[in-house]
Amino acid sequence: MQYRLLELAERTGCKLVGEDCLIESIAEISSALSGEIAFISNPRYVEYLSVTRASALIIKPEFLDVCPVPALVTDNPRLVYAKVANLLYPPKKSEPGISASAIVAESANIDKTATIAAGVFVSAGARIGAGSQIEAGCVIEDDVVIGSNTRINANVTIGYGCEIGDNCIIHSGVVLGADGFGFVKDGEGYLKIPQIGSVHIGNNVEIGANTTIDRGALENTIIGNGVKLDNQIQIAHGVSIGDNTVISAATAIAGSTHIGSGCLIGGLVGIVEHLTITDNVMITGRTMVTRSITQSGSYSSSTPMDTTANWRKNSARFRRLDELAKRVAKLEKKTII
Amino acid sequence: MQYRLLELAERTGCKLVGEDCLIESIAEISSALSGEIAFISNPRYVEYLSVTRASALIIKPEFLDVCPVPALVTDNPRLVYAKVANLLYPPKKSEPGISASAIVAESANIDKTATIAAGVFVSAGARIGAGSQIEAGCVIEDDVVIGSNTRINANVTIGYGCEIGDNCIIHSGVVLGADGFGFVKDGEGYLKIPQIGSVHIGNNVEIGANTTIDRGALENTIIGNGVKLDNQIQIAHGVSIGDNTVISAATAIAGSTHIGSGCLIGGLVGIVEHLTITDNVMITGRTMVTRSITQSGSYSSSTPMDTTANWRKNSARFRRLDELAKRVAKLEKKTII
Amino acid sequence: MQYRLLELAERTGCKLVGEDCLIESIAEISSALSGEIAFISNPRYVEYLSVTRASALIIKPEFLDVCPVPALVTDNPRLVYAKVANLLYPPKKSEPGISASAIVAESANIDKTATIAAGVFVSAGARIGAGSQIEAGCVIEDDVVIGSNTRINANVTIGYGCEIGDNCIIHSGVVLGADGFGFVKDGEGYLKIPQIGSVHIGNNVEIGANTTIDRGALENTIIGNGVKLDNQIQIAHGVSIGDNTVISAATAIAGSTHIGSGCLIGGLVGIVEHLTITDNVMITGRTMVTRSITQSGSYSSSTPMDTTANWRKNSARFRRLDELAKRVAKLEKKTII
Repeated sequence: MQYRLLELAERTGCKLVGEDCLIESIAEISSALSGEIAFISNPRYVEYLSVTRASALIIKPEFLDVCPVPALVTDNPRLVYAKVANLLYPPKKSEPGISASAIVAESANIDKTATIAAGVFVSAGARIGAGSQIEAGCVIEDDVVIGSNTRINANVTIGYGCEIGDNCIIHSGVVLGADGFGFVKDGEGYLKIPQIGSVHIGNNVEIGANTTIDRGALENTIIGNGVKLDNQIQIAHGVSIGDNTVISAATAIAGSTHIGSGCLIGGLVGIVEHLTITDNVMITGRTMVTRSITQSGSYSSSTPMDTTANWRKNSARFRRLDELAKRVAKLEKKTII
Repeated sequence: MQYRLLELAERTGCKLVGEDCLIESIAEISSALSGEIAFISNPRYVEYLSVTRASALIIKPEFLDVCPVPALVTDNPRLVYAKVANLLYPPKKSEPGISASAIVAESANIDKTATIAAGVFVSAGARIGAGSQIEAGCVIEDDVVIGSNTRINANVTIGYGCEIGDNCIIHSGVVLGADGFGFVKDGEGYLKIPQIGSVHIGNNVEIGANTTIDRGALENTIIGNGVKLDNQIQIAHGVSIGDNTVISAATAIAGSTHIGSGCLIGGLVGIVEHLTITDNVMITGRTMVTRSITQSGSYSSSTPMDTTANWRKNSARFRRLDELAKRVAKLEKKTII
Repeated sequence: MQYRLLELAERTGCKLVGEDCLIESIAEISSALSGEIAFISNPRYVEYLSVTRASALIIKPEFLDVCPVPALVTDNPRLVYAKVANLLYPPKKSEPGISASAIVAESANIDKTATIAAGVFVSAGARIGAGSQIEAGCVIEDDVVIGSNTRINANVTIGYGCEIGDNCIIHSGVVLGADGFGFVKDGEGYLKIPQIGSVHIGNNVEIGANTTIDRGALENTIIGNGVKLDNQIQIAHGVSIGDNTVISAATAIAGSTHIGSGCLIGGLVGIVEHLTITDNVMITGRTMVTRSITQSGSYSSSTPMDTTANWRKNSARFRRLDELAKRVAKLEKKTII
């Protein structure tokens, strides 16, 4: 797509300062060329202003004086950049209809504006809403419900009975509705506990590649509206995640833990089972959460990187930290304070 | 399925106290309704006893006095719950036979009671036993052997020559038998070491979604009977895991490490290569195992979560822990003890 | 394949000491039988020399005196083992041609020596080079470019516009070119930032099962020549990885981080966004990298494993480490030094 700069200003609610021009694409300020628009959010990049070859920039008002090209002026350049990018690069829409090589059960209900791509399998009782797209190689099991304008990318598996709302994006390799991990000791071995819950995903949810969300043991696993999950996240059975919570890659959340809304959870975080995390909590990357969090705020664990040589020495001391603390207490008793 | 409560009592070896009734489903005690059975294992939930609307409960003998509805009485309510759930929710069996859209090599040997679903690929020499089900989109490479009554869920890949026993469940997105990660430095770059071993999986094994188990470099990677693996676990080449060991999600085990039987390994655990872990070891979540474990018992590492502000201060001190310990030793010398 | 030992010596540039013989396979020294060759690199295994039943060994010159069988003599037995294994076990080549059950767009350009297996989907404008193999269930989206002699194993997804070089191996379950994780706060929720970059993979790259590499937000995500990635690695948008860098399983690298060439990065490592790691850096397993690394060398974090009982005591002290350090400083002031 291409737009006149003036139209981009109008559609994003910005003031245009400078001449109108044609914008065909978006780029980083350091590499943008003619016909391209770039944005500056971080003052670090102001040095590029004088040398940019971009046709236009998205900037804060304070940079207007030093901006050599037409500008969309806004207090939130990153948001305007996202809006402009959504205009210039609208999501690709496949042709509606069911591919000749898709296998769709007779009892499945596919909206006539939906797309079912090559080699997709849709089982009995599944319902797929208006404008939704199911890409190649997906397996949609019995009685799955998918809302409207949701995109399921290639090679996704959606287990029986799972429900996904409107305007979602599910990336390749995602598995929704595999059995939760539930067993009970029975003699030497373990007896499987049937996982009879489902997975319910709200609207405007995005789920990254190869992320897995298990079905509940008895209740459902629930992902709220507007939740954004990065790649390779593991969500266990019976977890619930509140609206607009964002979770970075490779984080794992154990069973029956409830996470509030508006949380920001970093990558590689682990959260153990049966906890409650309140709303608006930030958890930094690699944190191990072993108790509930009742106060919003920022939480962390882990230890800092060092050279391996230094780390070895400090790390060895960690194994005697309790002893060290006791020695300090003893010294305190002996020393007149 | 539905059962008379009396029949559930007989089949699970429990005493029925109270009137017989019809049980159609299972639910949590807090939400169970008429026609449903629930269980209480944790004394925390005893408060629900007086208000439950369940038709029956699975309880320990000590709760019988305060139980207002018919009860299955047992010392292990969780095990009886699992048994009841297995009766009420038997695993779904697909129709035996080979789907018209499956591609099955002529030399593959598929038992006539097995199910090969739509779009499955079964390569030359593969053997699939009685009652096993291969769901849509799976790829079964050359000479794979799958026992009887094993279920392979959708979009699983099983590499050439891998063997899987009876009564296993392999969840979607699993990859068995990809090449192990083996290279040797050759000039600036690396030369691949062919991975000529295989993967052997015992009986009654469950493997969670998107878990990967690599083929051995020379010997096989071996998963014992009754092993339960959660989602997104990584098992490297040449690992062996003893019978009835249970491993939680997102744990990674490096090459040629041998793990005993009856172990319980938490989520996000890392175990480095060439170690031996004895039987009946418990490893808590997020532990990094860098040496062999020769004594059964419980092992841990990692540091506790805190507010980010506190954590920053403590974490900074960690980088000088060795120095701190030396300063304490110096003080001890100076102080009359 | 089978080889005369003399031919193996010639092809690997080794000296043959002893009688020529027929070699049919390769095995570990402890289990090798007649017709098999084994290697000793680690002096620990010298004890096997006297009892080996192998027909030949690959050894260092210093073991020649105690080697009871014909030997390939070399200073680098591991490299010669890899070369011999590559001769004895050449990668399986599928028959060239497009399977009848593959769905290939008319505008795709498939070299006539390439293999497109059953059930593969190749979209418009894709190009696949000479000798490359695309295995069952793969989805190759629009305008993907795959070089020559590259093998894409079963059930891989390659997003539109991604480019892969020559002589690569991409293992099952890999997802290349899913959207990067980019959002901007917009009211209560988040607006998606379109991810318009691509993924460019060099030559001689191997990518392990279920690894994910996201497309860039504006620029491309770049994987250099000779890079080896293990299973379940997550590479975020805009990351670049220099030539011949090797990364072990379950490591996650956040957006716009640049990693040099010749690095060795362990498993379960986390690297936060917008960092620069110089060349020839080693990062040990489980390290959390939160700042750029400008000096080559070895880096670590994490804490050592202990029994859970000891770990609890030390770990509790960690939460008061800053206080402990202050108490030590106070003691030092009070004590005459």
